[in-house]
Amino acid sequence: MQVGSGADLCCFSENKMMIQPIEWKNGEVRFLDQKKLPEEEHYCQTGNLADLEEAILKLKIRGAPLLGIAAAYGVLLGVRDFQTAPSEVFLKKFNETCARLARTRPTAKNLFWALERMKEVVRLNSKDDVPTLFEKLVREALAVHEEDRQMCDAIGKFGAELIPESAVILTHCNTGALATGGIGTAQGIITTAHAQGKTISVFADETRPLLQGARLTAWELQRAGINVTLITDSTAAWTIRTKKVHCIITGADRIAANGDSANKIGTYNLAVLAKEHSIPFYIAAPVSTIDTTLTTGEEIVIEERGSEEVAEGFGRRTAPKDIKVFSPAFDVTPHELITALVTDKGILRPPFFQSIQSVMR
Amino acid sequence: MQVGSGADLCCFSENKMMIQPIEWKNGEVRFLDQKKLPEEEHYCQTGNLADLEEAILKLKIRGAPLLGIAAAYGVLLGVRDFQTAPSEVFLKKFNETCARLARTRPTAKNLFWALERMKEVVRLNSKDDVPTLFEKLVREALAVHEEDRQMCDAIGKFGAELIPESAVILTHCNTGALATGGIGTAQGIITTAHAQGKTISVFADETRPLLQGARLTAWELQRAGINVTLITDSTAAWTIRTKKVHCIITGADRIAANGDSANKIGTYNLAVLAKEHSIPFYIAAPVSTIDTTLTTGEEIVIEERGSEEVAEGFGRRTAPKDIKVFSPAFDVTPHELITALVTDKGILRPPFFQSIQSVMR
Repeated sequence: MQVGSGADLCCFSENKMMIQPIEWKNGEVRFLDQKKLPEEEHYCQTGNLADLEEAILKLKIRGAPLLGIAAAYGVLLGVRDFQTAPSEVFLKKFNETCARLARTRPTAKNLFWALERMKEVVRLNSKDDVPTLFEKLVREALAVHEEDRQMCDAIGKFGAELIPESAVILTHCNTGALATGGIGTAQGIITTAHAQGKTISVFADETRPLLQGARLTAWELQRAGINVTLITDSTAAWTIRTKKVHCIITGADRIAANGDSANKIGTYNLAVLAKEHSIPFYIAAPVSTIDTTLTTGEEIVIEERGSEEVAEGFGRRTAPKDIKVFSPAFDVTPHELITALVTDKGILRPPFFQSIQSVMR
Repeated sequence: MQVGSGADLCCFSENKMMIQPIEWKNGEVRFLDQKKLPEEEHYCQTGNLADLEEAILKLKIRGAPLLGIAAAYGVLLGVRDFQTAPSEVFLKKFNETCARLARTRPTAKNLFWALERMKEVVRLNSKDDVPTLFEKLVREALAVHEEDRQMCDAIGKFGAELIPESAVILTHCNTGALATGGIGTAQGIITTAHAQGKTISVFADETRPLLQGARLTAWELQRAGINVTLITDSTAAWTIRTKKVHCIITGADRIAANGDSANKIGTYNLAVLAKEHSIPFYIAAPVSTIDTTLTTGEEIVIEERGSEEVAEGFGRRTAPKDIKVFSPAFDVTPHELITALVTDKGILRPPFFQSIQSVMR
């Protein structure tokens, strides 16, 4: 595996300030090792599927949309050395590769969705010769990435309209370039408003237990030259009360037909605080996050995490042995507490059941 | 310094289950090294003032009421070897000792209050011979401790009336035996209700940045045989919504004449959550916490902590270099959000301006 470091090696985007957490480059995958953040901005480049598998497994690559893109590029790595092989060898390798990637993060929906798109290309083009098929797979993987980038841009553009000059924004977890193929969702709104010349201040929740806010969001916003201040999660209420916060923006992992939204644990807490302080609470997510098979948020199954992330999340034990821990990965914010859903198809307002229906048509 | 370990060495209290974080024992001070919690329950015993000074400085002994008791016992350590000395030597040593202890934690009000009580004994008994004066100082130090113990018992007794059978209680920070000379304040209510035979479940906020909830509260309640579950601070809202929490109880560091209460950062957040979920929010504190010179909570000056506790609180850096951090030590909960103040003189209800005035008379 070749190793590079520094933003100057980032050649996918014309904007050198923009983080490029993954890209397809000269027939290889180049990615930012997110485990080394915030201490080090370290990029790896590899032509080897095993390296990418390891990067996904060890969370060097994370964030739902980014995992989808990584899976698509991973398929290319798995078959790229078989472009001159007979069709059946190529297809066998293709299927093996998809199966290997599916085993890396079995709960990551985007990863399976991207693999499904790659499989569809093979299904629809089974008569093609191998080099042509490989070329179509490359185009599909790049399209997965490009569509995500455009989706982020659209969310950013729509959302930025909600952000006044000199806005003070509170956000939670990481929803930026590090999690997506583009500028991000909730954070994409912040960076778009900033790029429009608005003066923006951000308070970033550290986001226990895994500290994505401290490790990733604070790093991204600082790097983008945005005025960012880190707070512990329970400082949010006092910050809103004393620091003139204008609005709260978070992402979402899953949105029900009525607008109830599952997102990183702590999001519901913030929505309650927004209501108490009469400020808007926005959720930013692509329409692909909306699952209309779920009538309400009560149908969303909440994953519970192991106790270690809370009891010894920082390398040393900070709670008694055998302590019981309640550590849901997500909570569900009821639609009544959400001011608007900012999607790539526009801003949805209450009543969400209607606005979601019309955008899904 | 002699060193002992294990609860069996704890002989001050008749109740072996009860933690004794400090005691005066055979002319020496025995204390629990709270820095070693929750990994180890390690007691130190010393006749040497320097050891106690170091213990206070290094936070082996912490918690506002406990610091007062430690200071009173510290005075005894400073003069105990001068009981046969001439009066002027004894008094010189007494004054030196008070000055040394005052330098350990210059912002700890209880520490100064306890030193003042010891100085008053000397002022009122300046004609006594040295052994008699020393005896009176010992009695005063034991009285400081005993009064705190009784104050905790009274809060526990009054507060337990508010706790129904099978209550699920959410609490924040550490307000237990480790912080006081007795059973604690908010936690004292929990342990009293438990001792009355009520089945109690507790959710303990970990309480970032310093994790007193994870390190101390979880340990104390687990040790007392109470059903305790640890949560991250931002899990509180989802816990209240999904786990049938009956009430929230916290302590207070300072209470204004109108009932506005300053307490550990995150307390205000919980009070907002209690309102949204229509459950009671109780504050437990001795009347000595009420400062009627403050008309409202707006007059309370909030100490801001350094950034390291948030950015590298767990021994390794978890946020980017030079990140700005907003880390107030306390927040102020407005009186409108408080259901009742549980004091050692009884339960105070709104309007607090009136109920506080009548209890202070």
